[in-house]
This record gives sequence, C-alpha cells and structure tokens, in this order.
Amino acid sequence: MARTVDLNADLGESFGPWRMGEDEILLGLVTSANIACGFHAGDPDVMAETVRLAVSHGVALGAHPSLPDRQGFGRRPMALRPEEIRNLVLYQIGALAGFAHAAGSRLVHVKPHGALYGQAASDASMAEAVAGAVRAFDAKLILVGPAGSQLVRAGQAAGLAVAREGFADRRYEPDGTLTPRSRPDALIGNPDEAVAQALNMVERGEVTARDGTVIAMPVDTLCLHGDGPDAAAFARRLRMELAGRGIGLAAMGERLPDATARQPG
Amino acid sequence: MARTVDLNADLGESFGPWRMGEDEILLGLVTSANIACGFHAGDPDVMAETVRLAVSHGVALGAHPSLPDRQGFGRRPMALRPEEIRNLVLYQIGALAGFAHAAGSRLVHVKPHGALYGQAASDASMAEAVAGAVRAFDAKLILVGPAGSQLVRAGQAAGLAVAREGFADRRYEPDGTLTPRSRPDALIGNPDEAVAQALNMVERGEVTARDGTVIAMPVDTLCLHGDGPDAAAFARRLRMELAGRGIGLAAMGERLPDATARQPG
Amino acid sequence: MARTVDLNADLGESFGPWRMGEDEILLGLVTSANIACGFHAGDPDVMAETVRLAVSHGVALGAHPSLPDRQGFGRRPMALRPEEIRNLVLYQIGALAGFAHAAGSRLVHVKPHGALYGQAASDASMAEAVAGAVRAFDAKLILVGPAGSQLVRAGQAAGLAVAREGFADRRYEPDGTLTPRSRPDALIGNPDEAVAQALNMVERGEVTARDGTVIAMPVDTLCLHGDGPDAAAFARRLRMELAGRGIGLAAMGERLPDATARQPG
Amino acid sequence: MARTVDLNADLGESFGPWRMGEDEILLGLVTSANIACGFHAGDPDVMAETVRLAVSHGVALGAHPSLPDRQGFGRRPMALRPEEIRNLVLYQIGALAGFAHAAGSRLVHVKPHGALYGQAASDASMAEAVAGAVRAFDAKLILVGPAGSQLVRAGQAAGLAVAREGFADRRYEPDGTLTPRSRPDALIGNPDEAVAQALNMVERGEVTARDGTVIAMPVDTLCLHGDGPDAAAFARRLRMELAGRGIGLAAMGERLPDATARQPG
Repeated sequence: MARTVDLNADLGESFGPWRMGEDEILLGLVTSANIACGFHAGDPDVMAETVRLAVSHGVALGAHPSLPDRQGFGRRPMALRPEEIRNLVLYQIGALAGFAHAAGSRLVHVKPHGALYGQAASDASMAEAVAGAVRAFDAKLILVGPAGSQLVRAGQAAGLAVAREGFADRRYEPDGTLTPRSRPDALIGNPDEAVAQALNMVERGEVTARDGTVIAMPVDTLCLHGDGPDAAAFARRLRMELAGRGIGLAAMGERLPDATARQPG
Repeated sequence: MARTVDLNADLGESFGPWRMGEDEILLGLVTSANIACGFHAGDPDVMAETVRLAVSHGVALGAHPSLPDRQGFGRRPMALRPEEIRNLVLYQIGALAGFAHAAGSRLVHVKPHGALYGQAASDASMAEAVAGAVRAFDAKLILVGPAGSQLVRAGQAAGLAVAREGFADRRYEPDGTLTPRSRPDALIGNPDEAVAQALNMVERGEVTARDGTVIAMPVDTLCLHGDGPDAAAFARRLRMELAGRGIGLAAMGERLPDATARQPG
Repeated sequence: MARTVDLNADLGESFGPWRMGEDEILLGLVTSANIACGFHAGDPDVMAETVRLAVSHGVALGAHPSLPDRQGFGRRPMALRPEEIRNLVLYQIGALAGFAHAAGSRLVHVKPHGALYGQAASDASMAEAVAGAVRAFDAKLILVGPAGSQLVRAGQAAGLAVAREGFADRRYEPDGTLTPRSRPDALIGNPDEAVAQALNMVERGEVTARDGTVIAMPVDTLCLHGDGPDAAAFARRLRMELAGRGIGLAAMGERLPDATARQPG
Repeated sequence: MARTVDLNADLGESFGPWRMGEDEILLGLVTSANIACGFHAGDPDVMAETVRLAVSHGVALGAHPSLPDRQGFGRRPMALRPEEIRNLVLYQIGALAGFAHAAGSRLVHVKPHGALYGQAASDASMAEAVAGAVRAFDAKLILVGPAGSQLVRAGQAAGLAVAREGFADRRYEPDGTLTPRSRPDALIGNPDEAVAQALNMVERGEVTARDGTVIAMPVDTLCLHGDGPDAAAFARRLRMELAGRGIGLAAMGERLPDATARQPG
C-alpha cells in the first residue's frame, strides 16, 4: 500500500467574534487544509486570515463547502435539488479561490462539509452535483470523499482526481459508512485504538468495523479533528507513528498523479 | 470625446423566490452586466442563471459586490474597517468568478453596489480597500466608479484600468457627487432630460448640476436602471439617440486599452 | 356541517426591497392573516406594516413560522431536532406577537409554513414540537393544520383549539395528504373545479382525491393563495359562492368555542 | 446616594456551535441578565437555554437587542432610519419575551447592544426609536442607558422607568461618554482602579474622567463583562466590596419605583 499519506484538517471554522479550533497548531501538523467558505463557518475575514496562515505554513489549500446553515454548522441535512447543490458548491469554491489568488496561491482540493459530505457520500445525484461543480470550476481540483462512496464514484466519473479519506477516531459500520454521531460509540475515544485504526487503513487498506468485520478501506488522506484539548497531541503522536513505520507525509496533489499544478483558464 | 460608450446595468438582483428587474430585456440592450454576488441580492442559483444569460447575450460580465445587508439591499452605510471591505469584496468577486469560469467565460469589471459605491466614491481608505481587492484578485479587471471620485483615483493608483460611470437619470451636485436619494429631485423623471444628460456626458464630458453649474463629467460607461416599467423603453431610446449621433456601443474591455483579455494566474 | 367558515391567506411575504403578494387586496377578502415572521419571508419592517394593515382591515392575526431558509422560502425540508423546532417556532411567534401588541392587538392563531407545515403534518415528534411551542407561548392560540394530520392530533393532545385547513386549489391524495408540488397535477388550475372542491369540503366535509376516491375532509378554514394574477378574482368568486349558499365568514377565534380572547399572563 | 445597586451582564452570546462567555458563573453573581436576541448573537436554542438558566438563578430577564450584524457582533454602526430601528428592536424584544413567557417568567428591562447602544446614546432620533419600541411593547419595561445620554432622556420622555448604567472597567470622557474602544486607554485593566470607579459611581454618583475631571455619573446598575479569564473574579470582588460598604444588590425592577411587575395586555 501507500508509503505516503496526506493529513488533512478542517480549518477556518471561526466566525465573526467566535473562535473555534486550534488552527495555528494544526497547520504545523497537517499537509492539507479544508477551509470553511462562509456557509457553515468562516467569514471573509476569517477566510483571508486562514488562507494566509496556511500558505505561510506551506499547507495545501482546499475548499470545504457546506449547506447554507450556519446555526446548525452545516450538520443538518437539507432537501436541496442537485442544481442547488451544484450552485452553492460553485459559489463557495469561487469565494475561497479568490483569497487563494490574492495570497499568490491556488486551491488543490475540495472536501464537502458535514451533512453535504454525508448526503453526497450516499446519494448519487448529490454526489454528481458536487463533482460537477468541482469539475466546472477547475478540472484539476482533487475531490475528497470516503472510500467506496458515491462521492468518490461521481468524482471518478467526472474525470477528477479523487482522494479517499479515512478517519482515525470515527467508528465504521460493516458497509463502510461512518457510524452515525447519534450512537454512543461513534467516536473512538482511546488514542491507542485511533492510531491503530489509522495505521491499518494506511498500511493495509483495511478497517475493523463496529461489529468486528474487517473491510477494505484504502485511504489517501486522514482527517484530523481540530477541536478538543487533545487534538494536537493526537496529531503529533500519529505523525510519529507514521514516521516510525517509514510512511511519509505528502499533500494530495503530490500523491495523486492526475492532479497536476495547472490552474484553470 | 469618445465615439463609443459602454452601457451597463445592475442585474441578477432577484433572491430566492423574489424576482426583481427585467434582466432578459436589459441583456438585449446593454454591453456590460453588473451581477449581484449574494450580499445585497442574488444567490447561487440566481448568479448561475444570470451569468448563463449574460454569456448567451454576449454581454460582458462584472461583479457587483455590496455591503453585507440583504434586507437593506446594500443601501445602508455601515462603518466597516478597510480590511473588512477588502475581504468582503474579494469574497464576492471570487464567488461570481466561479460561475463565470463554469460558463466558459471570465469577469471583465467590478462595480461596487449601493452604499459601498457611495462610501468608496468619497472615502479614500474605503476606495483603496476596494481597489486593493480588485487588484489582488486580478490586475486586469476594470474598476468602475464615478468620474473624479476617490474610487477612480484609487483604481488608477493601484494600476487598474478604470471606467468612469455616468447616470442618465440621476441629478448631480455642483461638486460632481450624486444628489442623495433623500432629496425629492434626486431622480430625473423626464426621459427627454435624462437622454440629454447622457448625451452631454458622452459627447462633451459635461453635466449640468442641480444648481445650473456646468461641470466636467467625462464617462466611459452609462448606467441603465433595470426596474420600473419604462426602463427598457428608455434604454431603447438612448441607444437610438446614441446611434443617431454616430456613437457606437462597446463593452468596457473593448474601449479601455489597458484592460486586456488575460486571465489571472 | 359548518354554516360559517374562515378564509385565511399567507401575507407579509415581502422581504427587504422585494415585494410578493397582493396583501392589500387579500386583506379585503379574508378573515385571518398568516403573517411571515422573518425566517422564510418578512422582516421587521414588513411585519410591522402587515400587522398594521391587517388590524386596520379587521382581519385576525396569526403567526406563520417557518424553517430558517429564506433562499428556499421555507419549502426545503431540513432535519431538525424537535427541540430546535420548538425554539424556532417560539422565537417567531414571539417576534410577531410584539408587533401585534404594539398595534394594540393580539395573535389568534399559528399556522406553520411550507416544509415545516408538511413535516409537522406527517411526523408526530415534529407536530408535538410545534404544538408544544404554541402551547408554551399562549394556550389560547389556535393551531392550524390539515384535517386528520399529526399536527391536528398534537394540537388537540396539547389542549389547544385546532382549526382544520382545506385547500381549494390543491389536489389531495387518497390518504388525505396534499399531492406533492413536484407532480404536474398538484394544483387545480380550473377555478370552477377549485370552487367546487372548496364548497364540498365546507358543506359536506369531503373531498375527491386524485384517484377519484371520496374521503372525509372537514374544514374550519380555507387557504387562499396570495400570488398569481387571478388570486383576488378567485377569492371574490369563492366568497360569492359561499354567500349564495348561506355560508357566512367568521375568523377562527369566532368559530371555535375554546379559543377565547384571553391574553397570556 | 443609592444603598442598593443592580449588577447586569450581557449573556446568551453564544451562537450555533460557537460558545462565548461564562454564563453559568455570571448568573451566580449578577441580578440582571441582558440576553442576546439573535441579531448580534444568540439563536433560538441559545435563547431558550439562557432564559431557562437565568430563571433558575432568579436573575431578572432583559432583552439585549442589536443591529442586524452577526459577523460584526453588532458593533459596527449602520445608518438605519428610526422606523427601521423601532421595528428591529420590537422584533427582538418580542422574540425574547416568547421564551420568557414559555419559562413562566417575563422581561423586566431592555438594554440596546453595541453600536445600537452607542448610536442611541448620542443620537436623539435613534434614542426615541428605541424608547418608542420599548414603550409600544410594554410600558412597564425598564430602559437601560448611560447616565445623561439621549437614550435616558428619550426613555423618560416616553414615560418609561429608566436605569442609568455605569461601567467599572471602561474609561469616561469629560463629557460623560465612554472613551472609544479604538483608544489604547479605553479599558481599565487594573482591577483596583475598576473597583474604585464602580464604588465612586454608586456611592457618590461621580466618576473621574480620562483628563482627571470629576463629573456626575449617578448609576442604578453596573455592567459586568462576561468574557475574559478574570471576569468572574472581578465580579466576586466587586460584590464583596459593595457588601463591605453596606450596599445591597437589587434587580432594577426592585429598585425603581415605576417599574411594577405588571404584564402587558
């Protein structure tokens, strides 16, 4: 399996006067940043600052578009038509790309957020809408989705490079989906177990589901969560364990051959 | 003076279920479209549709960024810091540029909307913030502002091509600013008078202010208002009068030598 | 069956600079106004004006709360928890009640809007959340919902007076639910047919469903739609037909014995 | 001078997933809560919870309405017409009152937030708009504003009970206004000095302005800030110092004779 992996984190999730996440610390630990675009979190000032910080840390920029639901942090499913999904994804990618341009950089990837990620993972028409928006904006962008999902399939069908994402600290169901947050065992609280799950996905392309089944789960990128007091400590430990096994870190664009550095236009 | 002029109109000012303006009709009459970016009007669906329509009519695309005030339609001044202005302009230009990309086109100009236009016309630091955002996004974009304003000055200082805008149906003060809408004579209701004012600005670079003073007002583009039952009739008449005097129509990018068709990146 | 019926209409659905509906005309034709509370439509200025107009026409005031989705006009279902539903309904009722107080009047009823109406009609926990909010605000408010729905059941279980609503121009399914708007025959375009359906519900408490089945559909109030060029003409005709059959008009609070004029406190 | 004083704090300033302030701690220390109403902070869920907490602590409820500017936390002045101010204040008071009703309680006071507080303190027409909204909603509500301000004057002219507010940790100008936050010495960082200023206002009705002038500043209520690590410690110390001098704590409604416990309607 892969001898490098990307580490990504959701960043820029402050809004107005409200702070969220330890962005500066995480930017020292990840290779890719998923930056909120103002629909679930972030605002123009937060976006400008987050892009500036990510660029200064040499971390690859990605858009993290969401359903339009700031109060619900983009986590409450909404029944939108595919055309509406396409347009709101396009809007948010464009908005973030403006800050990337202004900072002398460019976007590398797009990872839908929250309920949009979940809906696009399982619903083919939502997935096609997201992939279509990414493709229409820039065919060289990498689309991030869970391995085996409709989102990954739609990205590939649209001719996009796709990065399969795994979660160290989220439980998986036997069908490869994430255990819903409503279940008490949705999160893996034990860091030993979370590290083991991450290594298993990276080294063997497998994960042990909630019922003990071992299922295929090959990953190109691991998601690190940015909040919680132990987020940074866990990220540091995971990096050390990866290094100890000879697994390097590389941003998605450096790992995936189809994702060249060309810019649209 | 100029033997061509650009005609621009504010378009895409519907929002959600609410319609505003006669966009399809105006797109047959103007050479440049200032498209709302979701802050005072417009939403991702309206923006996608407006860009599509403008492209299909061969009308040049421009961003029409606003203060964040949908209820007030961007017309209520807000005390924002220059950095906040810069970032919200950048956000909105980027968002609209995404739809332009996706439609196989590109943005040509940026014209601030409403109170942002007014504040940037008279306040040098606001003007610099707007010009800085435009410049940071794409140095080839044309900045639209009133002749003699801080906005035009800031655009030129930033090395941008600038289009000076005149209004056929708005009254001018002796200092070259627009008569505030709060005054009863702010609008020129008589179409004969409005046509005469437009021709005077285009042919002689002059306008007669509210007190009868004749002041310099050279223009590169004339703004046509999109609402009101007589908007289209007035636009047709103005086009006829211009044609009758041998004055052609040309989008800003075709008139202004510095504004080439290059794309950022 | 009933020898009086209430006529209600959704009003105050303008927002900021955008107009919607023929409120002044409809206020001359209905007995109850469902007034938007700022979440799908309406804003504080529109609400103040709509309340003022309704009071001056002697039309009973009702809150028309919605999911928080202005762009989608509250028509896109969202997956909210019952507690969230309760709180957003309470917020909106309170906000509108402030304008009613200030105009020397009071709220008489609450009718959920759009997707909230639909979700609360069929989902018992949503219905209980809505009914609980209404009850917590003022146990004398009348809750409006479709006959036979979870919403009506939850209202009755909460001890509220309930008004069963019928639609003249919407098609019904054999199970008593409205034919979804996505179907081509969802609306009854023929005014003769719409009038007949309304009379049938009022006089016999029945409606003929899409497949020809005759089902029970007793109603206390009929919904008149406010937009469309023929809305007022249809309302006038329906009033005439009702009068011709000796059926009077009476606001909900005058028809339903449990809904007295007492105020909370 | 007064032998009792009210202590108030701005509460419920979380929003969606974002937390702000130490509400539970402050509720053990103050006698009045100014609760955000969803325009600068707060949302229906936060409001419901804050009202519940305040009621359970026996702290008096007040509305803390704001300009409609969540990103700017209501601190950026906006040029609104008095009618717009009246309506947005009415909307927010009503919305919060709904939660108070539902919790079996009622609102006691209204204190405008941020830029609305500042604009209404110095601009007579804004002040009248705020006072008019409070009066229209419930003539028994107490209006909170800075001593000697237009807001206090407008409240008295409207026949409202008024509570004059002082700030322990904000510097005053010789004309009695607060030193703008843009100045480096706007805040009093030294807790000894802040306590001394508070006691001086309560005991002698005086404050020493930035230039050393002693000016009249009689107060009915002192504002405690809820954020910052030392907020609770400072509040505890101030309470102790007040107690040590025989000055009791009493909510505004218990101190001001005109503010009875009657409810509107």
